[in-house]
Amino acid sequence: MSDRYLDFANSGVGGWLTGALGLPRPAPLQRRAEAGAGLVGPLLLGPDGNGRLAAILGRLAGAAGQKTHAAWSPDVRYGGLVFDASNCVDAASAQGLYRFFHQAIRSVAEHGRILVIGTPPELMADVGGEAIQRGLEGFVRSLAKEARRSIAVHMLYIAPGAEGAAESTLEFLLSPRSAYVSGQPIRVGAGVAGVDQAGHKGRRVLVTGASRGIGEAITRLFVAEGAQVVALDVAGAVEGLSALKAGLGVETLALDITAPDAAESLLADALARGGYDVVIHNAGITLDRTIARMEPREWDSVMAVNLTAPLAITRTLVEGGGRRPNGRIVAVSSLSGIAGNMGQSNYALSKAAWIGAVRRLAPQLVEQGITINAVAPGFIETQMTAAIPFAIREAGRRMNSMGQGGHPADVAETIAWLADPASGGVNGQVVRVCGQSLLGA
Amino acid sequence: MSDRYLDFANSGVGGWLTGALGLPRPAPLQRRAEAGAGLVGPLLLGPDGNGRLAAILGRLAGAAGQKTHAAWSPDVRYGGLVFDASNCVDAASAQGLYRFFHQAIRSVAEHGRILVIGTPPELMADVGGEAIQRGLEGFVRSLAKEARRSIAVHMLYIAPGAEGAAESTLEFLLSPRSAYVSGQPIRVGAGVAGVDQAGHKGRRVLVTGASRGIGEAITRLFVAEGAQVVALDVAGAVEGLSALKAGLGVETLALDITAPDAAESLLADALARGGYDVVIHNAGITLDRTIARMEPREWDSVMAVNLTAPLAITRTLVEGGGRRPNGRIVAVSSLSGIAGNMGQSNYALSKAAWIGAVRRLAPQLVEQGITINAVAPGFIETQMTAAIPFAIREAGRRMNSMGQGGHPADVAETIAWLADPASGGVNGQVVRVCGQSLLGA
Repeated sequence: MSDRYLDFANSGVGGWLTGALGLPRPAPLQRRAEAGAGLVGPLLLGPDGNGRLAAILGRLAGAAGQKTHAAWSPDVRYGGLVFDASNCVDAASAQGLYRFFHQAIRSVAEHGRILVIGTPPELMADVGGEAIQRGLEGFVRSLAKEARRSIAVHMLYIAPGAEGAAESTLEFLLSPRSAYVSGQPIRVGAGVAGVDQAGHKGRRVLVTGASRGIGEAITRLFVAEGAQVVALDVAGAVEGLSALKAGLGVETLALDITAPDAAESLLADALARGGYDVVIHNAGITLDRTIARMEPREWDSVMAVNLTAPLAITRTLVEGGGRRPNGRIVAVSSLSGIAGNMGQSNYALSKAAWIGAVRRLAPQLVEQGITINAVAPGFIETQMTAAIPFAIREAGRRMNSMGQGGHPADVAETIAWLADPASGGVNGQVVRVCGQSLLGA
Repeated sequence: MSDRYLDFANSGVGGWLTGALGLPRPAPLQRRAEAGAGLVGPLLLGPDGNGRLAAILGRLAGAAGQKTHAAWSPDVRYGGLVFDASNCVDAASAQGLYRFFHQAIRSVAEHGRILVIGTPPELMADVGGEAIQRGLEGFVRSLAKEARRSIAVHMLYIAPGAEGAAESTLEFLLSPRSAYVSGQPIRVGAGVAGVDQAGHKGRRVLVTGASRGIGEAITRLFVAEGAQVVALDVAGAVEGLSALKAGLGVETLALDITAPDAAESLLADALARGGYDVVIHNAGITLDRTIARMEPREWDSVMAVNLTAPLAITRTLVEGGGRRPNGRIVAVSSLSGIAGNMGQSNYALSKAAWIGAVRRLAPQLVEQGITINAVAPGFIETQMTAAIPFAIREAGRRMNSMGQGGHPADVAETIAWLADPASGGVNGQVVRVCGQSLLGA
């Protein structure tokens, strides 16, 4: 649960020693707890203060008490650099991208944000436009590896006309809430329209696997944001559930989601409560073993908990009316599902399956005002990862652009953004929460 | 160019020493030069000798003098395991996948192949089917990390009805030709139909950047396969071109592809020759520097050589009739374009752009009987990688499931498969040649 190297390297004697030995010194990230949830600033907006989001960014910055700048100054440390590359159609028009970052990148403050905005490549008029817009992703991934370890770098593709649907995403990406999300493309489309609400106040949220780790962090964040959380976990986790109930006042539900009648009884419960606004499929297990040694029950249990049960619950709740309008579903996938992992053929299958499930369900559910997305955590500091042998744990922790593991709160923040009623333009996506892990597919 | 650790670890004293010290001992891969280009064998076909490709595989194996088996035997070392998971629609039906590999995986011979066949997820009838088919990718990536270092593991999605278009791909994936390709999904669709020819005999092939490294390997392989190669490079590489001409009898073309009239003069030349069957966009440069230090000419040159010029040549040749029917275009992208890389914001942009270009052009060109694909090399042993500082080079070499760098011939083999007239069902894809590098997106 605790990263002693990170603490040590940032202590007095540790800082001296790591410096003298040339060892890496990852900077502790600043999250909501340290830096609040508001926009970073000041923002430098390129090119030349223009771009199709300039007005929105100006308003968001103003509301957060931050300034926007149209021209680079050597005397300013910027909290965020934002470049709108939406109009790049070929290499010549991409020169502005180079000039902006060549000049400004050293002016980003510690814990700052870098954001490149593009047009979804497939919406460009011709092959040159699609090529350069797709190329931005390679550019951003490179910048994320070059930037200092406390700086997150984001690529945001916004469909033409969907600028108004991007606010909640801009607020996430340009704030401490996205501290451990970096170096990947995120898309905003038209999605679910006509939503006035932002934030989770009064929303009814179901969190599975809520008793500890990432599930507990999700529960705590939604409660702090004013949601009415129903914390679900197996009967064996009743102690953790009771603690949540006592500490946070949440309602709890002891249920084995793999029981034959689980989906139906969850639906009955949901209908009695008036339905859920948000369902977070967080419950999951690992039973690691190479396939040659894996036992049938290890294969079957992982499939049942991680895939079959949450798919059945999703279907039953949606078809049975257990959802309220403008619903949000977020599943917890995994970097293992993206990249595969030794000893996790069962787990990786179940988590990769959610990439397919989200892709299929997103366009179907959007007609009912529901979005569905997934998060894919990398190395997160939990009891689960604390049990990993030291050397492997250290490798997992350091092999990312931040040089450290993430916190359960980082996953929770990402889920809260996706589940926001104002995030209706974000649908069918799989967002990594991994500090730009080197690992991938 | 030479991997001394690999050589040492596989020598007498080196083998003893690495064993005693617990150091990794990657096995030298067996390629065409060591093991021929034919099918591995015997093949174990699951489930129970059935599957929609059983007849085709039986025929291909027979033609290569190999046997197929329908039932696992503890006494056989299999050259290849093939499991058809096309009909998996949920976790219950995926149990067969577990049982097959749980039993058989230890029976794969060194340098063997593992192949899982699936249905393209988006073609499944419902969300459960799409989920499990997409999940296969996570399963295969995990198996590729578990398998011994000389074994390549492949995931092949074949559209229903496209089985007949899969032969050239099966021959590639189940042979020494795919030694350094592993752990990723490859797709076969209907694509370009009605092609009788297989192999490159008599085909006219343009290779850019042909004078050395990967380009030279491509040239040598196509010549060995009976193609008429035109080897193109800049005037400064005339020595390498002359050597190719003298050694292989290829025609050569000294041309700067970034010259303003390059595309037009290439078209004129192509028309004079009767057009090309195959164009390989291999020419590329790196000019690495962090964006803060990068000079404008470093940004511009990389864009011009790697992106703008080959896009212009593609357009000019296609529109000008410089292609013959059943044409093939293959571009060399890069793992940098997929994952990004420190100091390569220019290169990564240009190489990621080809992922977009290929996606856009594939459905357009297929109407003219042309396919376009890309390969994305990981760490390949060339003069370019030999210039990388030792520690970084060693990390790049070892951070993949094979524990070693690839050879230029591995990239050439992959290109030759994609460029085969019989590979018309493979279109719009980006195939990594990286030994399942850990690095990814």
